[in-house]
Amino acid sequence: MVELIGDERLDYLLAENLRIIQSPSVFSFSLDAVLLAKFVYVPIQKGRLIDLCTGNGIIPLLLSTRTKGTVTGVEIQERLFDMAERSVEYNQLEQRIELIHGDIKEMPSVLGHSKFDVVTCNPPYFPINGRSIINEREPFAIARHEIYCTLEDVVKVSSQLVRQGGKVAFVHRPGRLLEILSLMRKYKIEPKRLRFVHPRLGKEANTVLVEGIKDGNSDLKILPPLIVYNTNNEYSEEVKEILYGGK
Amino acid sequence: MVELIGDERLDYLLAENLRIIQSPSVFSFSLDAVLLAKFVYVPIQKGRLIDLCTGNGIIPLLLSTRTKGTVTGVEIQERLFDMAERSVEYNQLEQRIELIHGDIKEMPSVLGHSKFDVVTCNPPYFPINGRSIINEREPFAIARHEIYCTLEDVVKVSSQLVRQGGKVAFVHRPGRLLEILSLMRKYKIEPKRLRFVHPRLGKEANTVLVEGIKDGNSDLKILPPLIVYNTNNEYSEEVKEILYGGK
Repeated sequence: MVELIGDERLDYLLAENLRIIQSPSVFSFSLDAVLLAKFVYVPIQKGRLIDLCTGNGIIPLLLSTRTKGTVTGVEIQERLFDMAERSVEYNQLEQRIELIHGDIKEMPSVLGHSKFDVVTCNPPYFPINGRSIINEREPFAIARHEIYCTLEDVVKVSSQLVRQGGKVAFVHRPGRLLEILSLMRKYKIEPKRLRFVHPRLGKEANTVLVEGIKDGNSDLKILPPLIVYNTNNEYSEEVKEILYGGK
Repeated sequence: MVELIGDERLDYLLAENLRIIQSPSVFSFSLDAVLLAKFVYVPIQKGRLIDLCTGNGIIPLLLSTRTKGTVTGVEIQERLFDMAERSVEYNQLEQRIELIHGDIKEMPSVLGHSKFDVVTCNPPYFPINGRSIINEREPFAIARHEIYCTLEDVVKVSSQLVRQGGKVAFVHRPGRLLEILSLMRKYKIEPKRLRFVHPRLGKEANTVLVEGIKDGNSDLKILPPLIVYNTNNEYSEEVKEILYGGK
């Protein structure tokens, strides 16, 4: 049993036999988060992983199906942290997923430097300079806009948390790609794999997945494009497999 | 009539009703050069364009079909410069294409700064540090390795030649992408359009096309992937159109 609050729903993560609490008025996970959880390198047998700006815990839940290691999720919004906690309990993953209610910028001092094998983050995409936010305390605004952390905060904190040779992966918008790449290099995370997500084959990318290695050497690969919809406006086979599994 | 030397051939550029002199033992143009000539922005009615490291003149010949402006080509190897000159004469394009036998690094002082609307370059792809070149005076080695110019030379010279607001486009290997992007920004050419070329849909990119604007603002787009071969191992429709036209 699980307690659902307000308009929360207990949604299926079909491919993984997991369920997750969502709320249309507060936070629902995006395809971007799912793609990041499938894109990132994950050690299978053991390891320490951490997901920053974890929202309702979608990425830790998905990562827990790919590794026998432990996953930490960090979320600054109490309401989302609470949803994530209840989802972890519902799936009986308390031994594998630890959730922290706090500011990612404090994590290096709370958790220590160079302690993680993998760091992931699906950060807020939009800068706040020059934009008016209707209500900057509204949960969607905090998840989408750089109110509590900037892209540089995310990259800097990731670099502090990951061990030498560990992996750091982000999902973001192509318009911020140059900024991400130069911040990664500034903080000694060498970009190694880039994958662009195109809504359709003939369309510009609207999302980018990037993974780097802490103190890695320079050798960038551009992976095959990930196409979301096929010509019939249905999910492509790859996206179906990611969302619904082989079932 | 045209004089052909040694094993030179007079090949067709089918899509454009042009012919070009090639030599299997000296230099043949690559698909990369053709893709760059089609990728770059070109002003239609007038303008001054320049192609650095022009080889046998493939890019100026193709650009001349897309604009009524003039195209300059610069080539350091006399043998290739001579092939390019004879191809331009054969196609009766002497009024539209000017070829210069010289070092690209001298072009800003020879031709002046900020005089061109468009700069293109399909540069040597491979650094020479740590590699042994069998014969560094061999034409293929000079075209492929950074013997006479480095990537930084190419970007710096391009930035000097192009006017403010003008376009600069390169084709290169994905492994050098981060270097290209950071050099472009160093020399005030803001990357605006990136297109990755994949041999097949499910394969990593092996080529990247990039275009920037001198002193442009930050706004990068990732264009649809360019797929070279379809599942039947034939050229894709897009590549057929580029190579053979609608004919």
